Amino acid sequence: MPIIVQKYGGSSVADAEKIKNVALRIAEAHGQGNQVVAVVSAMGDTTDTLIELASEVSERPDPREMDVLLSTGELMSCTLVAMAVRSLGLDAISLSGAQAGIRTDSRHGKARIAAVDTARISSELSAGRVVIVAGFQGITEDMNVTTLGRGASDLSAVAIAAALRADRCEVYTDVEGIYTADPRHVPQARKLDEVGYEEMLEMASLGAKMQPRSIELAMEYDVPILVASSFVDAPGTLIHQGADMQQTVGEIRNRARAVTTDRNVAKITVTGIVDRPGISASLLEPLADADISVDIIVQTATAGSDTDLAFTVSRDDLPRALDIVRAVAVELGGGEVISADHLAKVSVVGTAMQNAPGYASRMFRVLANENINIDMISTSEIRITCVIDEDRLADAARALHTAFELDEPE
Amino acid sequence: MPIIVQKYGGSSVADAEKIKNVALRIAEAHGQGNQVVAVVSAMGDTTDTLIELASEVSERPDPREMDVLLSTGELMSCTLVAMAVRSLGLDAISLSGAQAGIRTDSRHGKARIAAVDTARISSELSAGRVVIVAGFQGITEDMNVTTLGRGASDLSAVAIAAALRADRCEVYTDVEGIYTADPRHVPQARKLDEVGYEEMLEMASLGAKMQPRSIELAMEYDVPILVASSFVDAPGTLIHQGADMQQTVGEIRNRARAVTTDRNVAKITVTGIVDRPGISASLLEPLADADISVDIIVQTATAGSDTDLAFTVSRDDLPRALDIVRAVAVELGGGEVISADHLAKVSVVGTAMQNAPGYASRMFRVLANENINIDMISTSEIRITCVIDEDRLADAARALHTAFELDEPE
Repeated sequence: MPIIVQKYGGSSVADAEKIKNVALRIAEAHGQGNQVVAVVSAMGDTTDTLIELASEVSERPDPREMDVLLSTGELMSCTLVAMAVRSLGLDAISLSGAQAGIRTDSRHGKARIAAVDTARISSELSAGRVVIVAGFQGITEDMNVTTLGRGASDLSAVAIAAALRADRCEVYTDVEGIYTADPRHVPQARKLDEVGYEEMLEMASLGAKMQPRSIELAMEYDVPILVASSFVDAPGTLIHQGADMQQTVGEIRNRARAVTTDRNVAKITVTGIVDRPGISASLLEPLADADISVDIIVQTATAGSDTDLAFTVSRDDLPRALDIVRAVAVELGGGEVISADHLAKVSVVGTAMQNAPGYASRMFRVLANENINIDMISTSEIRITCVIDEDRLADAARALHTAFELDEPE
Repeated sequence: MPIIVQKYGGSSVADAEKIKNVALRIAEAHGQGNQVVAVVSAMGDTTDTLIELASEVSERPDPREMDVLLSTGELMSCTLVAMAVRSLGLDAISLSGAQAGIRTDSRHGKARIAAVDTARISSELSAGRVVIVAGFQGITEDMNVTTLGRGASDLSAVAIAAALRADRCEVYTDVEGIYTADPRHVPQARKLDEVGYEEMLEMASLGAKMQPRSIELAMEYDVPILVASSFVDAPGTLIHQGADMQQTVGEIRNRARAVTTDRNVAKITVTGIVDRPGISASLLEPLADADISVDIIVQTATAGSDTDLAFTVSRDDLPRALDIVRAVAVELGGGEVISADHLAKVSVVGTAMQNAPGYASRMFRVLANENINIDMISTSEIRITCVIDEDRLADAARALHTAFELDEPE
């Protein structure tokens, strides 16, 4: 019997009516002859409410305690979904992350899955039950509850699907799938029928947001993921290996797949530092230690032996990052530290790009024609990113969407 | 180092401010050189909110799922208390019922504690930590979460205290202790300094309500329980074996300890049934099967071979009980079934009564003087109960409180 792992996000289980709707979808998949495991997130804003509660009793809530607290959100929703499925006449059981065999390391708040022991899930499935699993959580060897990081119910679902060798992982959310661009900026944005894992990794900000680690895991274990709406009956977007390959070998799809945008960008520039080996590491290691991700890095030789180093971080991290960088800059002989938070990133993404030159120059030309200044550039095999002024982000996205022929159906 | 197990009820942890207050109390006990385990209930009305949520997704929520859902309330509160204690600079850890080693049978919603494995609690205490335990919950052999019944955080606390051979169990609540009568009916009611286990069992409805099973367990393992307010600094009431014994051997306390009242009373009378052996069992067994407790039972021979059987149940159970009794009465040859729900119970309680005759007649005389009609009578070794009209309950309680010299300090 085929095994399907479904995942329902917080907006899909936000209230009793929505939970009943989710139960109907689960029952439908079960009625079609599948063994069904459903992974659920906490209802609506539960997680935020719990974080707020914690902040009221403690200025710096202990990470272990925070994990126990946050894990209750998913326990609540998964047991309510199980009740709703049972009231449709099906046998269903809810399992916590621990009961579902999600073993993790002990990095509270951002634990990594070490293994998925599917014994309990498999025995419940064999007994004819629908299994509802609390997403976002696991348990350590020492039986301490952990959480896997914000939005990590996706990861729970993919990990369970991989461990069960499920036929498919279905991620239900409040949007209909993955789009060629953010419809808020680009009215012509179209939903994609399918997309490759690598492309999806570069497109994480488009439409259905999926946690990058969950995509990597799906790629590693070749788990196809269907992203679809839990509110409307529409085909959604299938994320699978085939989509990557078709594009590189076929001719039809030999073009970009999407234009992505990201406003959560801040830039830090350290000027006039003496250019000697290891200078970047000295600046960036303390940021890594503080768990601040640095994205685009540009080093520019200036007059004499001095150099400027510029890099981007997410805006939320800017104040902390500045504190760290300023301290290090003083140690390194006192370059000036400048920050900018009016920037944004726009990218063109597609596996087709890796074998076809010219995408980058085409992108720069489009932006130049729109009179949009490029502040920084970064590329991967299947993506070209420009940092531009946030005010011009929508203009840039629309122009690129049209120029790369994304307005028209494939 | 002395071990103290504290228990904080839902009203004591109802919001962030109250949780911080609880943390201060815990820190105080720790600062006095005790190892402290605190058992907490769910915040305020959390349990009711969760029950309401369940009823919105399912007409008859599955008991196993209901237990997982309800258990989240105590997980939340115990982790918040742990955070609050930690922010006072102490090391603290929260444990779920499962982590605290509360093993139960699998009767969901009213599981019985089978064993308390104190390994984890003890090792945390030895590591210098304050341990905060989620009350009201346990886990079965099959790793399914259970709850122990409404108000059973008391039971969790006493069971842990017994298993740890703790020096004392302290139950903090929103009243200052155990009273000689319900202050709402009897303004002269006084707080008792101490009370015996057996008396406490008969006085469960006075002031601090404690679950009877928790008192029985404390009696069995000789765990002294201090009942006190979590909001004011007052000495509270100590429930311990000594109080029972002093009263029976001493002279000073040779009097009643309390007048208790209970409005949750309904009476069912089955008239004109043929009096033959086994008739009571035939009527009452189906009620026991339906988990309906029958309290006072009176059988009265009437004309000829017929008999009337009257008994009380709690008012909440009356509709279900009537359905059952009516069906059985038809089977038994059709006596009439009459119900009354305007009744209440008033009792005089005290271990002194077991060796001193005359308490019952004195009670009846007091009620007669007040012109209060007695509907039913029931006695235990240390209690005399009269079922009377609910309208006269407060009058009866006041008159008895005065007549049995409870108005004056001991």
